[in-house]
Amino acid sequence: MSRSLTLLGATGSIGASTLDLVRRNPDEWRIDTLTANCSASELAALAIEFGAKLAVVGDEGCLPELRAALGSSGIAAAGGKQALAEAAARPVDMTVAAIVGCAGLAPVMAAVERGGTIALANKEALVSAGEVLMEAVARHGATLLPTDSEHNAIFQCLAGNRIEDVAKITLTASGGPLRTWSQAQLDDATPAEAVAHPNWSMGAKISVDSATMMNKGLEYIEAYHLFPVGLDKLDIVIHPQSVVHSMVEFRDRSTLAQLGPSDMRVPIASCLAWPERMETPLGPLDLAQIGELTFHAPDEQRFPATRLARDAIRAGGSAPAILNAANEVAVAAFLAGQIRFTSIAALVEETLTRSNDAPRPASLEEVLAVDSSARLQAQRLLESHALV
Amino acid sequence: MSRSLTLLGATGSIGASTLDLVRRNPDEWRIDTLTANCSASELAALAIEFGAKLAVVGDEGCLPELRAALGSSGIAAAGGKQALAEAAARPVDMTVAAIVGCAGLAPVMAAVERGGTIALANKEALVSAGEVLMEAVARHGATLLPTDSEHNAIFQCLAGNRIEDVAKITLTASGGPLRTWSQAQLDDATPAEAVAHPNWSMGAKISVDSATMMNKGLEYIEAYHLFPVGLDKLDIVIHPQSVVHSMVEFRDRSTLAQLGPSDMRVPIASCLAWPERMETPLGPLDLAQIGELTFHAPDEQRFPATRLARDAIRAGGSAPAILNAANEVAVAAFLAGQIRFTSIAALVEETLTRSNDAPRPASLEEVLAVDSSARLQAQRLLESHALV
Repeated sequence: MSRSLTLLGATGSIGASTLDLVRRNPDEWRIDTLTANCSASELAALAIEFGAKLAVVGDEGCLPELRAALGSSGIAAAGGKQALAEAAARPVDMTVAAIVGCAGLAPVMAAVERGGTIALANKEALVSAGEVLMEAVARHGATLLPTDSEHNAIFQCLAGNRIEDVAKITLTASGGPLRTWSQAQLDDATPAEAVAHPNWSMGAKISVDSATMMNKGLEYIEAYHLFPVGLDKLDIVIHPQSVVHSMVEFRDRSTLAQLGPSDMRVPIASCLAWPERMETPLGPLDLAQIGELTFHAPDEQRFPATRLARDAIRAGGSAPAILNAANEVAVAAFLAGQIRFTSIAALVEETLTRSNDAPRPASLEEVLAVDSSARLQAQRLLESHALV
Repeated sequence: MSRSLTLLGATGSIGASTLDLVRRNPDEWRIDTLTANCSASELAALAIEFGAKLAVVGDEGCLPELRAALGSSGIAAAGGKQALAEAAARPVDMTVAAIVGCAGLAPVMAAVERGGTIALANKEALVSAGEVLMEAVARHGATLLPTDSEHNAIFQCLAGNRIEDVAKITLTASGGPLRTWSQAQLDDATPAEAVAHPNWSMGAKISVDSATMMNKGLEYIEAYHLFPVGLDKLDIVIHPQSVVHSMVEFRDRSTLAQLGPSDMRVPIASCLAWPERMETPLGPLDLAQIGELTFHAPDEQRFPATRLARDAIRAGGSAPAILNAANEVAVAAFLAGQIRFTSIAALVEETLTRSNDAPRPASLEEVLAVDSSARLQAQRLLESHALV
């Protein structure tokens, strides 16, 4: 018996990894809906290949191109934000939520409100809208399967255990390409140097986040919402080889760790087959060949992003959403050559300071309003040339 | 509500670790029965401290001393093999089976036949009587919780997963104190050099087993019976720091590993509290402070014991029991200065070769008969001075 799957964000890298697994297991899955922002011809080709019932573009302006590309396939087409949310609300066995950015919030929430099982790869849903989302998950009895390699690792380590028996959750961090750089060197780091991630091939934004450690800061916030153990039991360790994806220590001092290749198909497969397992096209882990796994403590002097994230959780309310929005503005400015590498964290911190009276968002709309106003605030700070 | 506990082998090191945990959690456990071989006064003191209902010595000759030491405590006393098996058959919530050697077989079987929950620390039950034991476990619906650090690690990694989803189980091995020695150096290794285990404090016999890697060979046989994935999916990796206690790779290429301090109270606590967790008096794992975990492939040229164990599993029938019995004779001879370090494996191999027509034991009695005759065979080989 195959299971029905909706993939929100079919043309991105998580989408491609998911479809690779579905393609290898044609009897296991039938695609209900595929969505993209605007890559209409690519989306249409995938919808036709996988026999989807519905293809949706988030950008309504791309709908005519989608319709044309679908031709006489008989696959229904829709476009726009409302259509995206409606697509996410269709009853399916599993939803993979892989839309990048705040555009993913409303579709994730639609799937949650249906009480669905959601493989969650959208960071903003937990970082910016963590409280709103988790409340909705509890209210509607939805099941969240974390797809990020770190959170999926933690989820796997918790299987068969009780959250109240957890003594510590440790996120591993590669430390990024600038891990060993001095403060002075970091000041002069270029975009090209910052995007050269050693273990994962990723887009420019997330690569810079890895170099600043803000990626780990955002994951820290996500972990805080996904695994309710409290801030004091959340830790980060630098592990340059990225073989151990995260770990959980229990109160008896047993630690369970998840290890694996740096390939998103592993955590995605873990979500797709949960609570069972499915084949992936990857080779076995050979620790004898890897030889050595190293660990050291993070340095929040040189890489203050994880401290900012922790402070944002402590501040609560809108602070995590502001942190995320300001970081996006700051990274874009760094990639455009407008600010220094070390000014990314400084801009985020200054935006947080100036937004400290923002109210606690109680709905998705309020989260989006906080996000917009934080972006404006960060942009104003940039234009004031307070940071270079 | 406290749970009732019988501890078979209360005066050994597993017994001491178990009682340390019970002592720290007086509301969780009430001791039903404590047993020892002959340490009568020590056993009586423990029985009185923990308010046991029954104390049993395996050696009937020690019963008068036990009776005298128990005095007017009101605690019942018994002695002899039959009394030991009857004690193990008493209905309790958990049995910790920590009797060393073949003397532990009958009490373990008695607890199994009662359909009990058994924290199993007796190696011989699985190594020599693996098939007989596992058949009885299935027939009587008993629950085995492995207490060895490696098997407990595997058991923890399997929680929430299906055995059919396992791609590989990897036992970690410290490699022992002679790990880096050349073949020529190994030929001349002394008992003092062989018992100096780097990570665990253990008795002389098991320390020599660690130095020869026979300990890992025996664990390999145990794992084969406990986790029915087949020989091809059982692997060994050398990990000198002994922080990772073992791991399980699933078919999606996720690997789960259990890490922790080299202290038997951790796996024992995991069994006692299963499927929940309990506090242990140990500190948190600090990988940043440990810094480095290393792994390399075993060298079966210098350390042939794991190859002998694998061959014994393949041969099946009585071979694992013969291997275990011959190894005990060989280690004793090595510790007595009668044979070289490298002759231990040679004696085991030669005993196996000469016993290759021994029948498959179908009962505990037949296992014990195989054990006795293999000891005689090994002894005869020793006395023939074929090996020095």
